[in-house]
Amino acid sequence: MIEEALAYARTHRQALLEALQDFLRIPSVSTQPEHRADIQRAAEWVAGYLREIGMPQVEVVPTGGHPLVYGAWLGAGPETLTLLVYGHYDVQPVDPLEEWHTPPFEPAVRGESLYARGASDNKGQVMAVLGAAEAYLKTSGRLPLNLKVLVEGEEEITSLHLGDTLRRGRERFAADAVVICDEAILDPQTPLLMYGLRGVLYLEVEIQGPAHDLHSGTFGGAVDNPLNVLTRLLGSLQEPGTRRIAIPGFYDRVRPLAPEERALLARVPVTDEVARHLTGAPALAGEEGYTTVERVSVRPSLDLHGLWGGYTGPGHKSVIPAQAGAKFSVRLVPDQEPDEIAELVIAHLQATAPPTVTLTVRVLGKARPVLVDPREPAIQAMAEAFQQGFGAPPIYMRAGGSIPIARDLQEILDAPLVLMGFGLPDDNTHAPNERLYLPNLWRGVETLIHYYARLALPAGSR
Amino acid sequence: MIEEALAYARTHRQALLEALQDFLRIPSVSTQPEHRADIQRAAEWVAGYLREIGMPQVEVVPTGGHPLVYGAWLGAGPETLTLLVYGHYDVQPVDPLEEWHTPPFEPAVRGESLYARGASDNKGQVMAVLGAAEAYLKTSGRLPLNLKVLVEGEEEITSLHLGDTLRRGRERFAADAVVICDEAILDPQTPLLMYGLRGVLYLEVEIQGPAHDLHSGTFGGAVDNPLNVLTRLLGSLQEPGTRRIAIPGFYDRVRPLAPEERALLARVPVTDEVARHLTGAPALAGEEGYTTVERVSVRPSLDLHGLWGGYTGPGHKSVIPAQAGAKFSVRLVPDQEPDEIAELVIAHLQATAPPTVTLTVRVLGKARPVLVDPREPAIQAMAEAFQQGFGAPPIYMRAGGSIPIARDLQEILDAPLVLMGFGLPDDNTHAPNERLYLPNLWRGVETLIHYYARLALPAGSR
Repeated sequence: MIEEALAYARTHRQALLEALQDFLRIPSVSTQPEHRADIQRAAEWVAGYLREIGMPQVEVVPTGGHPLVYGAWLGAGPETLTLLVYGHYDVQPVDPLEEWHTPPFEPAVRGESLYARGASDNKGQVMAVLGAAEAYLKTSGRLPLNLKVLVEGEEEITSLHLGDTLRRGRERFAADAVVICDEAILDPQTPLLMYGLRGVLYLEVEIQGPAHDLHSGTFGGAVDNPLNVLTRLLGSLQEPGTRRIAIPGFYDRVRPLAPEERALLARVPVTDEVARHLTGAPALAGEEGYTTVERVSVRPSLDLHGLWGGYTGPGHKSVIPAQAGAKFSVRLVPDQEPDEIAELVIAHLQATAPPTVTLTVRVLGKARPVLVDPREPAIQAMAEAFQQGFGAPPIYMRAGGSIPIARDLQEILDAPLVLMGFGLPDDNTHAPNERLYLPNLWRGVETLIHYYARLALPAGSR
Repeated sequence: MIEEALAYARTHRQALLEALQDFLRIPSVSTQPEHRADIQRAAEWVAGYLREIGMPQVEVVPTGGHPLVYGAWLGAGPETLTLLVYGHYDVQPVDPLEEWHTPPFEPAVRGESLYARGASDNKGQVMAVLGAAEAYLKTSGRLPLNLKVLVEGEEEITSLHLGDTLRRGRERFAADAVVICDEAILDPQTPLLMYGLRGVLYLEVEIQGPAHDLHSGTFGGAVDNPLNVLTRLLGSLQEPGTRRIAIPGFYDRVRPLAPEERALLARVPVTDEVARHLTGAPALAGEEGYTTVERVSVRPSLDLHGLWGGYTGPGHKSVIPAQAGAKFSVRLVPDQEPDEIAELVIAHLQATAPPTVTLTVRVLGKARPVLVDPREPAIQAMAEAFQQGFGAPPIYMRAGGSIPIARDLQEILDAPLVLMGFGLPDDNTHAPNERLYLPNLWRGVETLIHYYARLALPAGSR
């Protein structure tokens, strides 16, 4: 049945691409309240597609926030393994809009890539998951294993409600292995398997100074300006030389990098020249004593994401703004815990802020870091599937990004976690001109067709 | 003739208020290109008013930028003094708009105050100048002295073209004394005369990091984030403890505060409690070793006015922005020179910025600090006029704000400068809900009626 499925996938690429384009036209930005109806539409779209390809159990499951879509085909029987595959239908905001060459929600194929918000993260990858299932169901009417598909709508807002839904639906979502298909590979010839993820703590800070905006001529020098204070507080969070994060206790639980892991990561073929090219930065910079690959995988980082306050229009205005604020996050590595780090960061900011202003810090999101054992059979089966789909064995590394629900999936479902995907490092996820390299979509579908079959084989017979 | 003028002013207050409201309805925001037509309208409006009250020479004078309005009545003859009075018809931007209780360009009287952008800075004060001239011209058909009125449209953008116009029109604008009517007094019972102004240097800085926005999961830790760098650079410009400006050489030319001046300023009845109340700040803060009055008058200051970069919408976005930028200014005191300070600031920023980003610094505006001798007869005549108009002698201090053209007026016209006005410290100039305390407008008109007569008297006879 695998040959028929592969043949179907190859002859139905255009249809899958068109379906993906329909999916991408829905501006399902989860963080912006004005897109609430689009979120609902995107969920219904996924459910509709699951029904169309012949999934017998399909449901749009309400949560405290955006709904998730659940589909299951359990016809392989209790003797066969059950796999749960996770993806998300929500996307990041699109600004700065003026930098997009074509509108973010009007998918456009240029060269071998499909451009749209969500093309790579994560709608294109969700379509690979669905396309592989479709290939089996449309040719054999069945799958090699029991398959559960879970596509949520809150990944970009730290999966606010999925943990609770998983805990309440432990039986329903139970599986022998969990695949998260939301990662990138190194280049089209070099697949990648992740054995870890960084966590994240996302914060918003606001500073209130004077009761109202003041003229900087009349009052400049007599009050602390909220923007002056904000830059002083945030600018001192990272040491300029070593680029270490200057929050007392921040590194206490960071696992030292073992020589064996350092050697493993040294085999990741991402040179500094490649990284510099991918970023377009004048020069790379990061924590003293670590390589670029180490800096984005096994070491924490701190990034400001947005800053506001005062006058930013053309020309000049001599204002001392009454308020200023910023969004920033820290990426976390084992064994840092977001709640503990939040306490450290907030205590540090409160201790550093002068009593001349009122400081408010809010946690906007958090995700715990994840580590898995790459020797897990479910991961080794994916390595073999990659070899089939891409013609090359995967490189192993830890991902720099965070998947908020990964640790919950691992712990609540008590199942081995497979962190994989088909994106590319220059897909511009979370940025203008996000794209998906289409040959990766086709290889991704075939990799998953192989994986569904391979994972179903009794261990030892592969 | 002064009694008739005073009587006219008292019986025509409503008409003057209505004219001022018409003037305030014109959104003449000089820094925003979309208001170019409004700027022209405001200039024509002033010229029209000057003609209406009987000024024989009235002209809207083109400059390289926004036009200025010039009106003159020289009927007192060459034996009598010539006074030039300066004001401006341009206003500051109005954001944050949502904080205005009534629209900024729909003047509204509430209690004894008139609310509108420009009510205090400077249209209301310009109307006092015109109203005092009107009172004489409409009753006696003449003024006690030769009067030149100069109302420009670029004060809020550092009088970009007025210096050149003055230099080219030295004869035309020549005067025996120059009054700048653009200041505040301490409270309705306490007039103020300024014997100095701070200068200002207004800068914009931009930082370019990566070629495009990056995902902070994938790349966080491997590149310098422009917002991280910007806060580090700007946050280190002011020492957190002493609040001193941490730019090498910055204080080199600051005149030490003489004990006599310190004693004079100690008499200014602005207590810290008054200042705290005016600002609404949780607590005052400023340079170590100086009082609040000293901090805003004889000491320089540094204020950030606006910061941008990254995502500032609702929720969160994990972006490393490609660019970030800020506007900030330093207020200068004698003998700091804006051009020299600009070199110091730019050199310091360039030396501090890491080579991982591209830094651009632009000077958006500058004004030199000003000092005058309060014993000048033209200033003493104003002190006497204040005693008549407000029933109290003025306090003497230096203004914290800057009037970009003051030093040029002083030097090019080689005339004593009188820095005065009728605003109040809580007029919310440059902020939402700008207002003018109307009793000050009426006292201001009368003060100027007295001044026009008093200055015309031969020295020694007053």
